[in-house]
Amino acid sequence: MTLKDRIFIALLVFIPISIAAHLLHWGSLTVFILSALAIVPLASWMGAATEEIAVVVGPSAGGLLNATFGNATELIIALIALRAGLVEVVKASITGSIIGNLLLVMGLSMFLGGLRYKEQEFQPVVARVNASSMNLAVIAILLPTAIQFSSDRGLALNEIEKLSIGVAIVLILVYGLTLLFSMKTHSYLYDVGVAGTEEKEVEAAEHAPPNLKLWVGVLLAATLAVAIESELLVGSLEVATEQLGLTPLFTGVILLPIIGNAAEHTTAVTVAMKDKMDLSVSVAVGSSLQIALFVAPILVIAGWFLGQPMDLDFNPFELVAVVVAVLIANSISSDGKSNWLEGILLLAAYVVLGLSFYFLPAS
Amino acid sequence: MTLKDRIFIALLVFIPISIAAHLLHWGSLTVFILSALAIVPLASWMGAATEEIAVVVGPSAGGLLNATFGNATELIIALIALRAGLVEVVKASITGSIIGNLLLVMGLSMFLGGLRYKEQEFQPVVARVNASSMNLAVIAILLPTAIQFSSDRGLALNEIEKLSIGVAIVLILVYGLTLLFSMKTHSYLYDVGVAGTEEKEVEAAEHAPPNLKLWVGVLLAATLAVAIESELLVGSLEVATEQLGLTPLFTGVILLPIIGNAAEHTTAVTVAMKDKMDLSVSVAVGSSLQIALFVAPILVIAGWFLGQPMDLDFNPFELVAVVVAVLIANSISSDGKSNWLEGILLLAAYVVLGLSFYFLPAS
Amino acid sequence: MTLKDRIFIALLVFIPISIAAHLLHWGSLTVFILSALAIVPLASWMGAATEEIAVVVGPSAGGLLNATFGNATELIIALIALRAGLVEVVKASITGSIIGNLLLVMGLSMFLGGLRYKEQEFQPVVARVNASSMNLAVIAILLPTAIQFSSDRGLALNEIEKLSIGVAIVLILVYGLTLLFSMKTHSYLYDVGVAGTEEKEVEAAEHAPPNLKLWVGVLLAATLAVAIESELLVGSLEVATEQLGLTPLFTGVILLPIIGNAAEHTTAVTVAMKDKMDLSVSVAVGSSLQIALFVAPILVIAGWFLGQPMDLDFNPFELVAVVVAVLIANSISSDGKSNWLEGILLLAAYVVLGLSFYFLPAS
Repeated sequence: MTLKDRIFIALLVFIPISIAAHLLHWGSLTVFILSALAIVPLASWMGAATEEIAVVVGPSAGGLLNATFGNATELIIALIALRAGLVEVVKASITGSIIGNLLLVMGLSMFLGGLRYKEQEFQPVVARVNASSMNLAVIAILLPTAIQFSSDRGLALNEIEKLSIGVAIVLILVYGLTLLFSMKTHSYLYDVGVAGTEEKEVEAAEHAPPNLKLWVGVLLAATLAVAIESELLVGSLEVATEQLGLTPLFTGVILLPIIGNAAEHTTAVTVAMKDKMDLSVSVAVGSSLQIALFVAPILVIAGWFLGQPMDLDFNPFELVAVVVAVLIANSISSDGKSNWLEGILLLAAYVVLGLSFYFLPAS
Repeated sequence: MTLKDRIFIALLVFIPISIAAHLLHWGSLTVFILSALAIVPLASWMGAATEEIAVVVGPSAGGLLNATFGNATELIIALIALRAGLVEVVKASITGSIIGNLLLVMGLSMFLGGLRYKEQEFQPVVARVNASSMNLAVIAILLPTAIQFSSDRGLALNEIEKLSIGVAIVLILVYGLTLLFSMKTHSYLYDVGVAGTEEKEVEAAEHAPPNLKLWVGVLLAATLAVAIESELLVGSLEVATEQLGLTPLFTGVILLPIIGNAAEHTTAVTVAMKDKMDLSVSVAVGSSLQIALFVAPILVIAGWFLGQPMDLDFNPFELVAVVVAVLIANSISSDGKSNWLEGILLLAAYVVLGLSFYFLPAS
Repeated sequence: MTLKDRIFIALLVFIPISIAAHLLHWGSLTVFILSALAIVPLASWMGAATEEIAVVVGPSAGGLLNATFGNATELIIALIALRAGLVEVVKASITGSIIGNLLLVMGLSMFLGGLRYKEQEFQPVVARVNASSMNLAVIAILLPTAIQFSSDRGLALNEIEKLSIGVAIVLILVYGLTLLFSMKTHSYLYDVGVAGTEEKEVEAAEHAPPNLKLWVGVLLAATLAVAIESELLVGSLEVATEQLGLTPLFTGVILLPIIGNAAEHTTAVTVAMKDKMDLSVSVAVGSSLQIALFVAPILVIAGWFLGQPMDLDFNPFELVAVVVAVLIANSISSDGKSNWLEGILLLAAYVVLGLSFYFLPAS
């Protein structure tokens, strides 16, 4: 068992503690922090279970499973927050996840990996295909905001809703076609460990084959626990962040994605430090891609069913921030090489964006 | 005779029908649709005649001919619409042609070509030079809009006019220098079939040499017929699009460019399906380049002579759309390779932009 | 002695003339022009002295010296203008320096170099690292403007100040790390003549070793003289530019950077015409990088000490112009090759931006 595994098992203790904190009224801030600490290892267990099951069911079904459950933690938190009417926070968590994956996760990976290795390489082909898909996805989810911002008198609310649903449908179709491309017609381009499947296959060959029933059980249990902890997190969110002096926008853009993506963060950084930069970049970029092409559209459609006006009309500065994150990530990853300074540049971009969101007045 | 030729000859029947529709008052919508159908084959004949004449007169004069008459159909429609005072529609058709060529034409070519061939290649050198020229052109024609949008109190109308004419002159000079570069000083970079000249030369060597007088006659007749049909199209445009519930912006950005560019569309897609991706990309990118560096400036100067305030102050969302189209086309074409998914990404970008223009409120 | 040296020595005559003009009240416009003419050769002497000293003290200390004194002229003019309260002009000179280096200097170099050599090459690796740093720097210094422009009700003045200082500190840290990268951990990437050190080393080996005391004296004298002439320039600036009908914005963006950067301009162009494109590009890009990562932050912090509200809230169109300059410079330099048309494209971009700033109404 690795050190990371030990830490993540130890963190499971926060599940009962956070529930106790909720039942015994220890205060919103306490519940918020404890439930956040409980979600981190659960997300990791969900990820581990998904990958073990993926190995057993084979590459196609496994790839689909990864593609659907890859950001399950964030999706669950977002759905619960959406039902609770925290629409602004949910929207902000979408842009925040994209920014966090591209700048914070990729930046930490390149920086810490770069401290060990002078220069690290990764496949530019996959990076390029992903970058193009990312560009499209980001453009598409930001178009309603661009319309609102650029026209004198914006759209009526129900027209933004319609446009957002139209865009969401196009994105889900594109997501499906991206899977078809990467798993069927051009799978040879993705030979190197997308989503860690290959990694796991090698481990699987070395160890005993994973126990399907066990891991399905783990996945269900972890999903259930994440859902419960997310209720605690969302229920305490408004009061807790107000006590911390944070705006809903800052909470959604910076705080929630760090909680929801902690598992990907540790994976990406760990493999970068083993010089498996291919895998590291594909975890970071793949995760943002999934957020933009799959999680965001699902939330738009879910908002429609839940009667919550979850459209794609973001804060204009979110548009700026996402465009900035995509441009700088493209510029740094396009040559298929990385070094510690490139990691620093990504991290510095994250810090100045974070500062900006901190100072941004609530709308 | 190819199937395409047969269809385009059959379509000539819409010339007398559209004129009859106009004289017999069959209604604006009918005249609009019939004249649009008549223009498509005429544009194709103009293109064919231009290329045949280009073969006879030699590469230099031929290149210049292609460079001037390449977008003649769009220029004629735009000039007639400008004289009729449809300034907003004309402006929108400029941005719409750029977007349509980069996303719809290139997207369809890459998608349909990609269904036949796993991976298609084209010269990245030419793509890169063109991309840089395109970036400049797009930036230049959008600067007046950027000024209007970014300053608290915009420019006075006559100052925008002056700025637009200044920009137009710079762009025409750059266009001339681009021709000098591609036809004289660095013509070796463009060896592969720009504007189809080489294609035609091969055909010419196989068949009999083209009859110059015949083709000049065809060119004149087709130009005259396009001009007449454009009068019908423009005359019926406002009432027809209103009946269809379309804004002038949507008409200019989406509808007119599809009519004016139908010939390029079919050429680009046809050659892509024969794996001549070089030619396909250069038709699509070259056509947008010509619009931005030649057609747009000519229209600005013509507007000044015609007393129509044809400046370069576009709708801000047009700026967003063109920037988006250029960025995504750059991102996809910069590696000199294409596959079906990249075609889908371009088409999806076109669809979401189309949806956005559909919902955009009239200003 | 080269022709350039002769001209620069002859220009020293403008030092006494400009002082006489000031004392004898020949009028603001005269003083402005004469002091500008005096500053150009002084900046060149400062550059020469810095490089000679750099050769003597060795690569590390020398690199640091170049990194600190590289844009000393601009920094001195800006500090004096800041003390005089010309905050808008100073801010505009920051964006103007970036635009001028990337478009005017690089454009002239590629154009004039390209007239002699069909195709010129330079190291894309360094261009890429610099481009990424530049992207970050530009994004960071423009974020406060983006916030102001994108939010309904902007930030309070003191919050912009705080945010600007935060951003300035991040940028100075990044600048320090960039130096560490280029001079220590990855210096091998920069083997080819960054900041001309190698050039000078070769010359030094051929000639006698430079006299350290002499050059330190030259540096001090030139710095002092620049400071005096800058007082004259700044003192006459407002009246002179008003007489010329120029806005403070145009003065800062176009006029001041041409004066402050004249030395870099001549160096970059001269070496480009000797086919040393590597050095030419690194002078132009390196200088913009230094402005964004070092000069701009220093000015923000100095403004705070001087009690002048020197924040990073630029005119929104400056944001547009810098983004445009960076995008087009990236697009043209990313392949490590240049030709005369690419030079023309950069120059054309500079001309249309200049036209735009000329017509931009004072805010």
